[in-house]
Amino acid sequence: MESVFQNETVRQILEKYRRIWAIGHAQSVLSWDMEVNMPGEGILERSVAQGELSVLSQEFLLRPEFVELVEKAKGLELNEYERGVVRVLDRSIRISKSFPPEFLRERSEVTSQATKAWEEAKKSNDYSKFEPWLDKIIDLAKRAADYLGYDNEPYDALLDLFEEGLTTREVEKMFGKLERELEPLLEKIMEEGKVPQNHPLEKEKYEREAMEKVNLWILRKFGFPLGVRSRLDVSAHPFTIEFGIRDVRITTRYEGHDFRRTVLSTVHEFGHALYELQQDERLMFTPIAGGVSLGIHESQSRFWENIIGRSREFAGLIYSALKENLPFMGNYTPEDVYLYFNMVRPDFIRTEADVVTYNFHILLRFKLERMMLNEGVKARDLPELWNEEMERLLGIKPKTYAEGILQDIHWAHGTIGYFPTYSIGTLLAAQLYYHVKRDIPDFEEKVAKAEFEPIKAWLRERIHRYGSIYPPKELLRKAIGEELNPEYFIRWVKERYL
Amino acid sequence: MESVFQNETVRQILEKYRRIWAIGHAQSVLSWDMEVNMPGEGILERSVAQGELSVLSQEFLLRPEFVELVEKAKGLELNEYERGVVRVLDRSIRISKSFPPEFLRERSEVTSQATKAWEEAKKSNDYSKFEPWLDKIIDLAKRAADYLGYDNEPYDALLDLFEEGLTTREVEKMFGKLERELEPLLEKIMEEGKVPQNHPLEKEKYEREAMEKVNLWILRKFGFPLGVRSRLDVSAHPFTIEFGIRDVRITTRYEGHDFRRTVLSTVHEFGHALYELQQDERLMFTPIAGGVSLGIHESQSRFWENIIGRSREFAGLIYSALKENLPFMGNYTPEDVYLYFNMVRPDFIRTEADVVTYNFHILLRFKLERMMLNEGVKARDLPELWNEEMERLLGIKPKTYAEGILQDIHWAHGTIGYFPTYSIGTLLAAQLYYHVKRDIPDFEEKVAKAEFEPIKAWLRERIHRYGSIYPPKELLRKAIGEELNPEYFIRWVKERYL
Repeated sequence: MESVFQNETVRQILEKYRRIWAIGHAQSVLSWDMEVNMPGEGILERSVAQGELSVLSQEFLLRPEFVELVEKAKGLELNEYERGVVRVLDRSIRISKSFPPEFLRERSEVTSQATKAWEEAKKSNDYSKFEPWLDKIIDLAKRAADYLGYDNEPYDALLDLFEEGLTTREVEKMFGKLERELEPLLEKIMEEGKVPQNHPLEKEKYEREAMEKVNLWILRKFGFPLGVRSRLDVSAHPFTIEFGIRDVRITTRYEGHDFRRTVLSTVHEFGHALYELQQDERLMFTPIAGGVSLGIHESQSRFWENIIGRSREFAGLIYSALKENLPFMGNYTPEDVYLYFNMVRPDFIRTEADVVTYNFHILLRFKLERMMLNEGVKARDLPELWNEEMERLLGIKPKTYAEGILQDIHWAHGTIGYFPTYSIGTLLAAQLYYHVKRDIPDFEEKVAKAEFEPIKAWLRERIHRYGSIYPPKELLRKAIGEELNPEYFIRWVKERYL
Repeated sequence: MESVFQNETVRQILEKYRRIWAIGHAQSVLSWDMEVNMPGEGILERSVAQGELSVLSQEFLLRPEFVELVEKAKGLELNEYERGVVRVLDRSIRISKSFPPEFLRERSEVTSQATKAWEEAKKSNDYSKFEPWLDKIIDLAKRAADYLGYDNEPYDALLDLFEEGLTTREVEKMFGKLERELEPLLEKIMEEGKVPQNHPLEKEKYEREAMEKVNLWILRKFGFPLGVRSRLDVSAHPFTIEFGIRDVRITTRYEGHDFRRTVLSTVHEFGHALYELQQDERLMFTPIAGGVSLGIHESQSRFWENIIGRSREFAGLIYSALKENLPFMGNYTPEDVYLYFNMVRPDFIRTEADVVTYNFHILLRFKLERMMLNEGVKARDLPELWNEEMERLLGIKPKTYAEGILQDIHWAHGTIGYFPTYSIGTLLAAQLYYHVKRDIPDFEEKVAKAEFEPIKAWLRERIHRYGSIYPPKELLRKAIGEELNPEYFIRWVKERYL
């Protein structure tokens, strides 16, 4: 395989980058092991090791001779692979340089204590335990935005951290449209839709071994390279992690009831993993290996979860495996599985929300985060704002903090500006679907027959193989010739649920 | 916990050492994952990452400001913890500095190709495929000895790499005594001993799940902190690895027959792990955390494997667990288990050798290695020398290269001078036993009742807690007031087998 990197300066950059890559590889293995295998008391030494590796990686990134090479390369004539390398590194260096070390130390201390406070607050349903920490986190987010700099408003700086080039204006426009169109739609679905609000399958209990078999059966049908380039393990919260292009692992969890969750989360993580596995191997060891952004990544997981995993054809496909492993399945039909996977019902918890109401949960968080950053809203005011907005959007009002403002860990981690990428992924998945359908008109039949290769090839050719060569918007233009457009998602909801 | 490191220079050294420690922690996790979990094709990226991390660790160790601090500390008045830190680092720096980078590169290339050649040679029983590589490896070992320097003979330099302070003279003396006394003993055991050469239990087949349960049962009896500070996993070759003092993992393997192997290998690895787990936690993150040498480490694993694991009391203890999980066990008594665990029979393969013949396998390798280093013996001559020596020592002659000179991977890895540490551990285990017995006269009764705490406490107080504070010989003087003495092992063999 000939290298796509011919420019001498870029080659020098990549030569030096290898150790940063290696440290990143190690950090990923250490994280995976921590979530999947680590004995409990290993945490002290593991945390110290992770902390040292982070500092080391930063040091190598910001070494003057490395930064100078990247600066030099910015002025050169380069091919698009090389330009990608320079873009990604320049961005990482800029972000790393923005924050003074004291700020990073303070943030790491505050978020680690805030996380503990959040856990206790959630457990005891006592918001006052978390409130002072949330104020500190809002303050840190504002200062982070100031360090990073922005054109229009502080929230822009944070959004861009998670989704390169994304602006508050765009997110506002997106949610504006969603709110206008999705709200009446939801009402209509609830009144006269084709899907139920409840299904008896939700209450059926299962043995872990049974659903392990089903998940592995599904992954094999997808052609997931188990044991060759990937694994399926168990962790408290499902995730995907890549150690490179040839070792990408996913996890799931088994709760013993409501089997839809473990199936759809496995399918979701498979979507993430496929993005990493189907990259051009010539990107190996470089900073442009790996999915380009959280939004694009989420579009891949949601594509497999929502478009494929919740389709009638998929329910039909997996029914035999379900029936073989779940004794209660004899009482249900494939159509039951389909309806169960597609229930729509306003509820309090984002992670358990259905496809239609999900975006309202994100919209709510976006509004509140923006108010924290731009309008001086304090932690004290947030529970009421949360509950009001929840009632306005979904017509329900949380009775506890735990099922309201305390449900997510993100703010305790200091992560503000991240949530919108979830909606971007959800909308984009539907948009991609209509583009795939143009090239594969018998998409549904292919799903029904487990012929996933053409679908995987489409995603690989249009999106996956590029890794992070292009920034998200440019990648989209290249892949589908247009930018993110919520229309597709609304159309998809109408077609599926009305 | 107050720090035992008060000297300012040593504190600076340890501050800088943290990142070397962190890289080592990461390297260990990466190795463990590679043996236990890694999907096959992950090997390319994993190898590159491991290579980069090794180079990085070396660079930090040899940074002038770090080396200067260590040099400076050598002249200061220090407590014994601090002296240990300086001794260990000074030794590592000296060894690292000895080898020119070109030599290290050459060695890494030769050994990686030699390993492939060895695999093929072993599989096809064709020594000629490996012979040219072995000559290269002998040459590399000679050059390594020259780079390291030595007082008496080149082999000294290699021995010291694996067992700090050990000389060829000492090993020669040890094996001299063993050969003189053990050879007639072996003959006598074979003729009139209390143990058989065969036992029908050897042929009984088992289900993996059954022996998993037995191994876990044993580890729980030992008080192994499974899930808290340790794990038991499966790998092609059993090993122990420490990521720190609070996360020490062992592996075993299940072959489906001859269940003694998986039991004794689990018990063996437990002995290694206990050494790491029972260290003084004040050594955490320092270069004196971790067992001090291969020989001392092997004495711990052999203590649990040979002294405890092959005792009549242990056979009695585990019999109930065996009976519960192995259907065929109903046809056998605890005494059968004891005899089966203690069969003595000259055989070709070192890793399957019994306690008595084991040392002859090592003696053979020691002789051949020394001839390679000091007497110009070439790869061409080695198979014949091997077979002659085997016949002289054990009265049997290998019929194939695979059961003769090609059986071990060590030489292909370039590891020469390592084997003697196996015998040191075996002899020392018996020596420790008689010392333990002075303090715990009812040792056997304690094993029978699974009261392992006093035995573990003895090992912790005398050996484990010290980590690498003292070099091996000093540690022994401190622990038992004498140096390694093969008499004890011979006495133990007589008492047990005659």
